Amino acid sequence: MGRESLEAFGWEPQGQDGAARAGLLVTPHGSVPTPAFMPVGTQATVKSMTPRDLREVGARIVLANTYHLYLRPGVETVERAGGLHSFMQWDGPILTDSGGFQVWSLANRRTVTADGVRFRSHLDGSEHVFTPATVMDAQQRLGADIVMAFDECAPHDAPRSYVEEAMQRTHDWAVRCKEAHSQPGQALFGIVQGGVWPDLRGQSAEYLSSLDFPGYAIGGLSVGEGKTQMAVALEAAVECLSTTKPRYLMGVGAPEDLLAGIARGVDMFDCVLPTRNARNGTLLVNEGRINIRNGAFRQDLRPLEDGCTCYTCATFSRAYLHHLFRAEELLAYTLATTHNLTHLTRLIASARDAILESRFTEFHQSFLTQYRTRSDIQPHT
Amino acid sequence: MGRESLEAFGWEPQGQDGAARAGLLVTPHGSVPTPAFMPVGTQATVKSMTPRDLREVGARIVLANTYHLYLRPGVETVERAGGLHSFMQWDGPILTDSGGFQVWSLANRRTVTADGVRFRSHLDGSEHVFTPATVMDAQQRLGADIVMAFDECAPHDAPRSYVEEAMQRTHDWAVRCKEAHSQPGQALFGIVQGGVWPDLRGQSAEYLSSLDFPGYAIGGLSVGEGKTQMAVALEAAVECLSTTKPRYLMGVGAPEDLLAGIARGVDMFDCVLPTRNARNGTLLVNEGRINIRNGAFRQDLRPLEDGCTCYTCATFSRAYLHHLFRAEELLAYTLATTHNLTHLTRLIASARDAILESRFTEFHQSFLTQYRTRSDIQPHT
Repeated sequence: MGRESLEAFGWEPQGQDGAARAGLLVTPHGSVPTPAFMPVGTQATVKSMTPRDLREVGARIVLANTYHLYLRPGVETVERAGGLHSFMQWDGPILTDSGGFQVWSLANRRTVTADGVRFRSHLDGSEHVFTPATVMDAQQRLGADIVMAFDECAPHDAPRSYVEEAMQRTHDWAVRCKEAHSQPGQALFGIVQGGVWPDLRGQSAEYLSSLDFPGYAIGGLSVGEGKTQMAVALEAAVECLSTTKPRYLMGVGAPEDLLAGIARGVDMFDCVLPTRNARNGTLLVNEGRINIRNGAFRQDLRPLEDGCTCYTCATFSRAYLHHLFRAEELLAYTLATTHNLTHLTRLIASARDAILESRFTEFHQSFLTQYRTRSDIQPHT
Repeated sequence: MGRESLEAFGWEPQGQDGAARAGLLVTPHGSVPTPAFMPVGTQATVKSMTPRDLREVGARIVLANTYHLYLRPGVETVERAGGLHSFMQWDGPILTDSGGFQVWSLANRRTVTADGVRFRSHLDGSEHVFTPATVMDAQQRLGADIVMAFDECAPHDAPRSYVEEAMQRTHDWAVRCKEAHSQPGQALFGIVQGGVWPDLRGQSAEYLSSLDFPGYAIGGLSVGEGKTQMAVALEAAVECLSTTKPRYLMGVGAPEDLLAGIARGVDMFDCVLPTRNARNGTLLVNEGRINIRNGAFRQDLRPLEDGCTCYTCATFSRAYLHHLFRAEELLAYTLATTHNLTHLTRLIASARDAILESRFTEFHQSFLTQYRTRSDIQPHT
């Protein structure tokens, strides 16, 4: 349960191609080849998937949310069960988000205090306070391998002055999180903020680097800003981060964005998109996305994606998946999630191979050539 | 796809203890030890379960509903996919219900004609007619191993005169179904009706026996009548049925009712109860039922059922299941269904062993001694 020493944590570079990096993230619960995508298990479960399903789709590390688990079932319940690994029976590495993003999303249900954020639960309206100290306490008791500093994620259209203020608060809280964190064998990552301003991103990355965290996340991107703005901000941050520490781009999970992030030197990603999309019937194929609910798939007896080896593609037809979605059958969500996660895992593994073989740029180009980002792919007949 | 000759179907007796029988149901898609419980896959999927999950919980034969599949995805879609086995990728035996029960349940959305029933779809209000001929056509094209005659299931509190009339109609339709059924390798079962009246049940069983079906169902029970009335009607029917053909009690699936049916010579059962209950958090344990949503299980770290070898019990704690149900997580439904089906499969397998070892009465008694039918079991602390 992550009780080993911090020596158990690290990131070992294995190859680089341009800015893109391949490596190995070492944690007390095993190693993870990077780049890596972390499926989101908000409430200590990746929706519709068993732990063995997760293994089968190639997931190596999962994310859980401190905010949700703190409210339900409560940190004490998870702690009594022996921590998150034992509670959810996932024996691989786990990362917990700090709750910063969720708390700031509560908008008019929260107020900022000098020390943190006072908020009302989205479940029952009860009042709670998150401070760097309480968030560290919760995450240490949840027992993930990697925990995140408490940060403020400013809205993408906030004025620069506000973004700067939020960044300063994030820096201040990063210091306090570091002071409050005492769990050996658990790695605390700092979170770079600074909105879409490259100079702020650079400043933030430099300041956090001076605190010497074992890894760094880039937060507050993919929240509504354009792709170009995101790329510029990301580059500015990465430039100022250590080359020997893992870099984690938060909340990014669309195939094209994963590759864009990898191309800029990111090692870790998480996002609800592949799993949430799956439950809406939006499925990832090499050419982009299809919506399996589309009537055109009603009698399509081909597998969802040609050449995919996931259980869904190896077993069922598009016609059957279409039927399950139309009939709102629970099996639809499991089968779709199985496919989307397998697809992403395979994409990232291919990207990693390309980096190790120094052909990432071609790989990226070839991906972009065949890939369409809209759900406009029609079945061939 | 069930294209073999009818020789492929049969029921071989293997042992008897009192009225209770053990046997082997032989179908074109493999053999099923009886007594057997058939999980219900209404819309060509047992809710929340993959076919491999079904194998793992010990299911050997599943049921699907003609009424639902006829409306969605439509018989043609299933037929084009190569039939139900291929469509849902279940390679074991399948039984389809005739739709009689569903159509009669539509109450004010249906009218009886001389030849069948005119009804409006519960999905879109469109008008359809089910007759013995159309129902046979649909079931033959769906391609199950066992299909059911079109019958009328009278309400449990209908006057005797109406029950008699419905029984006569069921008999008339049984003849027409037999005439319309031409699929070799697919066994057509007759359905005994007659409400709670033992003499009508006897009459119905005798009449259907004279038509010489390869198997017989007892329909119209477990629809609200009392347990004693059900037992008396069941006994009257079974007494007049062939001892060499399989007997199927429709819509019965509570553990105590399965054993009561087995004790009276029933070989096959189906019911939505174990799977529907699972999705409501009502879970079967040796002592009866527990509702895992109960706050008492919040920090209960024991497995759901002591000694159960299902994936759920072998992997997770009651506390985690409680959390999944409270958080309305999809995984809850899969894990709960996995357990309830495993529990029932094991119960029936134990009953079968007891019959083969001539100790079924003791087994039944010992079950009743420890079993409580209400959800009032509290956790030990």
